[in-house]
Amino acid sequence: MKPVKVGLLGLGTVGTGVVRIVEGNQEDLSRQVGSPIIIEKIAVKNIEKYRSIEVETAKLTEDPWEVIRDPEIDVIIEVMGGVDQTKEYILEALERGKHIVTANKDLMALHGSEVLAKAQEKQCDIFYEASVAGGIPIIRTLIEGFSSDRITRIMGIVNGTTNFILTKMSQEGASYEEVLKEAQELGYAESDPTSDVEGLDAARKMAILGTLGFRSNVELKDVSVSGISKVTSEDIAFAKKLGYEMKLLGIAERQGDEFTINVQPTMVRKQHPLASVNGVFNAVYVHGEAVGETMFYGAGAGEMPTATSVVADLVAVVKNLKLGVNGLKAIVPYNPKKISNDEDVYFKNFVLLHVDDKAGVLARITQVFAEFDVSLASVVQQPNEVNPDAEIIIVTHLASKASMKKVLEHFETLDVIRRIKSVYRVEG
Amino acid sequence: MKPVKVGLLGLGTVGTGVVRIVEGNQEDLSRQVGSPIIIEKIAVKNIEKYRSIEVETAKLTEDPWEVIRDPEIDVIIEVMGGVDQTKEYILEALERGKHIVTANKDLMALHGSEVLAKAQEKQCDIFYEASVAGGIPIIRTLIEGFSSDRITRIMGIVNGTTNFILTKMSQEGASYEEVLKEAQELGYAESDPTSDVEGLDAARKMAILGTLGFRSNVELKDVSVSGISKVTSEDIAFAKKLGYEMKLLGIAERQGDEFTINVQPTMVRKQHPLASVNGVFNAVYVHGEAVGETMFYGAGAGEMPTATSVVADLVAVVKNLKLGVNGLKAIVPYNPKKISNDEDVYFKNFVLLHVDDKAGVLARITQVFAEFDVSLASVVQQPNEVNPDAEIIIVTHLASKASMKKVLEHFETLDVIRRIKSVYRVEG
Repeated sequence: MKPVKVGLLGLGTVGTGVVRIVEGNQEDLSRQVGSPIIIEKIAVKNIEKYRSIEVETAKLTEDPWEVIRDPEIDVIIEVMGGVDQTKEYILEALERGKHIVTANKDLMALHGSEVLAKAQEKQCDIFYEASVAGGIPIIRTLIEGFSSDRITRIMGIVNGTTNFILTKMSQEGASYEEVLKEAQELGYAESDPTSDVEGLDAARKMAILGTLGFRSNVELKDVSVSGISKVTSEDIAFAKKLGYEMKLLGIAERQGDEFTINVQPTMVRKQHPLASVNGVFNAVYVHGEAVGETMFYGAGAGEMPTATSVVADLVAVVKNLKLGVNGLKAIVPYNPKKISNDEDVYFKNFVLLHVDDKAGVLARITQVFAEFDVSLASVVQQPNEVNPDAEIIIVTHLASKASMKKVLEHFETLDVIRRIKSVYRVEG
Repeated sequence: MKPVKVGLLGLGTVGTGVVRIVEGNQEDLSRQVGSPIIIEKIAVKNIEKYRSIEVETAKLTEDPWEVIRDPEIDVIIEVMGGVDQTKEYILEALERGKHIVTANKDLMALHGSEVLAKAQEKQCDIFYEASVAGGIPIIRTLIEGFSSDRITRIMGIVNGTTNFILTKMSQEGASYEEVLKEAQELGYAESDPTSDVEGLDAARKMAILGTLGFRSNVELKDVSVSGISKVTSEDIAFAKKLGYEMKLLGIAERQGDEFTINVQPTMVRKQHPLASVNGVFNAVYVHGEAVGETMFYGAGAGEMPTATSVVADLVAVVKNLKLGVNGLKAIVPYNPKKISNDEDVYFKNFVLLHVDDKAGVLARITQVFAEFDVSLASVVQQPNEVNPDAEIIIVTHLASKASMKKVLEHFETLDVIRRIKSVYRVEG
């Protein structure tokens, strides 16, 4: 049978894994799709660079356009990263009727609707399983596995770097700075870690999951984000004492026809399945009206896990190619986008305050919560170990995001509060 | 657009859920498939029976053939259960060019290859996501999500009844008999619980998962089975003391081109993701050469979770119908079936012996292990609390199934051993 020819944009970590799988599992793959799959051309930054795999030099080019314009090539796998230039490549490839497999979360979160629309116009497939949670087939699961259900909540540990950092801080009592440095040395964190630690990477992935889960066109700007750079080992120790683990959670939740998506460090009760997801692993917890609680766990990044998802998408494209049905199964998000007001988003909160150690302080503070209708699940006042302040540790019942905001604003004006030390969402 | 008409065989727990979802999510479903989906006819045992949902009496029939022979019906959903008679219905429906969605693990485990061949011959779809692990889309995951990978190991908690029993025994220290009775009262166990507690139900599901994971035609007879009816609360207490939870695990594992599938009560180390899967929940742990460790968790049974999978399959059938590609994506298992010899299957073991409390006994017992080349990770001898015997608790290193069999056979002949109290596989 006529082989299917594939062009690869990028031969970094994931690209290398893709070559390994396509070559190593060639027999298995061709049994499934009915013909050989050949990686015909590969665009790289530098042809001369040393690589851990052998690739025919004749297949390499430093010009991505050469791959995109090759009329022999049916499918483009994009694993080079980047946004604006890469979008241009992908749009041109689609224009030429080529199908796309991409691992590019930034592109899909920022310009997903544009490239998906172009793909539909040209009756091309564009698959992006590897863009979220590496080897976990969560995109397929949301599109196909739960096509019948109404998803009400998606909670994800979708950034391995921050989960590695928080796990180490929790297990070893180490500081954020120490563990970040270790993560950088191990290659788990970039030299500029901003995108990971400030939650931006997780927010992009949550925008993609929200779009699929709620079948509505979620954009990055719809996601509220706060990162982990201010989480201290003291906070984590408090969390553990109360029976929680600290996790950077992306939480997409729907009430009626409105939804909200928030990424923030969250105290997760130890019994919750997400609490024991450790190290660089990822997990996505999905709640559907009919299916109830589910969770999907696996490696969120890395050469081979991510390549598994890329090549599974390639198999899907080639099967569609054989059947002549590429681009015909895409679902355009059909639900209008309505973001919930902060008045309608409820969660529990952990609040740690440093206050003057004198009579009546606790009364004034609890009075503020009462004023804004936030009821409290537990309150502990204790002397601080290192300075003359007292510490007040409060866990609220479910409170609206808006009310909590007002409470915290009010606290800024209270002279008895020396410092709002930490505020975290609490789940489970 | 012309509606797609569906015939339903069975209106028990799952069938009721299917009606609820198809009616309740009609708008969402028709957005995805491009036309309404109508449940046209329903075969039931007794038309007069009280039901928790309203169904037009005109749609009901007590004759399944009436549904199967209706030329208006495109898709048959089989949720009536049973094997021989049901197979006849399904084969006849396929003969008439109708597509099948079934939740019937017994049928698929016993006659899967026959009905799949018939479906291929007639270019019909037959999907069976709901047959394993209820609401968890594990079948899709193995077929599509991991199409690119070589699966080396599948470990499943795929029977909710036994997981409920073992969880209760572990959490409350209750006896097997007490908890079984409670499970029966709650409707989690049948009045004749044999199929669940003796591991047969799990074996059927593992035969299905093994077929998909190893792309080889696994039959029920290829699965070795032992159930939980001999597990005592004492055994579970021992497991916990050593850092394990007792679970009924189905384990399908591959070495080279050979595989083995075993269902047995297993001590799972507490840190393993399967150890904290409790109650009626199911989970399937999958290890692939490229993707590494993954786990999929959710409700293994119940009206709505199982119906979620059934209706997701229905959506897939209808999408294929619109594209005219039904039956064209099926993969016939292409790997020849080679079952590993017991000499080549290695795992750790827990052994609890009651022995004479006198000098030299431990030496004789450890001598037997040495003779058959089984090395020991830990050995503890202690007096039994209620009788004059001593207890010896042994955990082995990895040992071949064949060697362990010989050790245990030899133990039967040793006069110093009063009783081989328990033997369990150990994982993690």
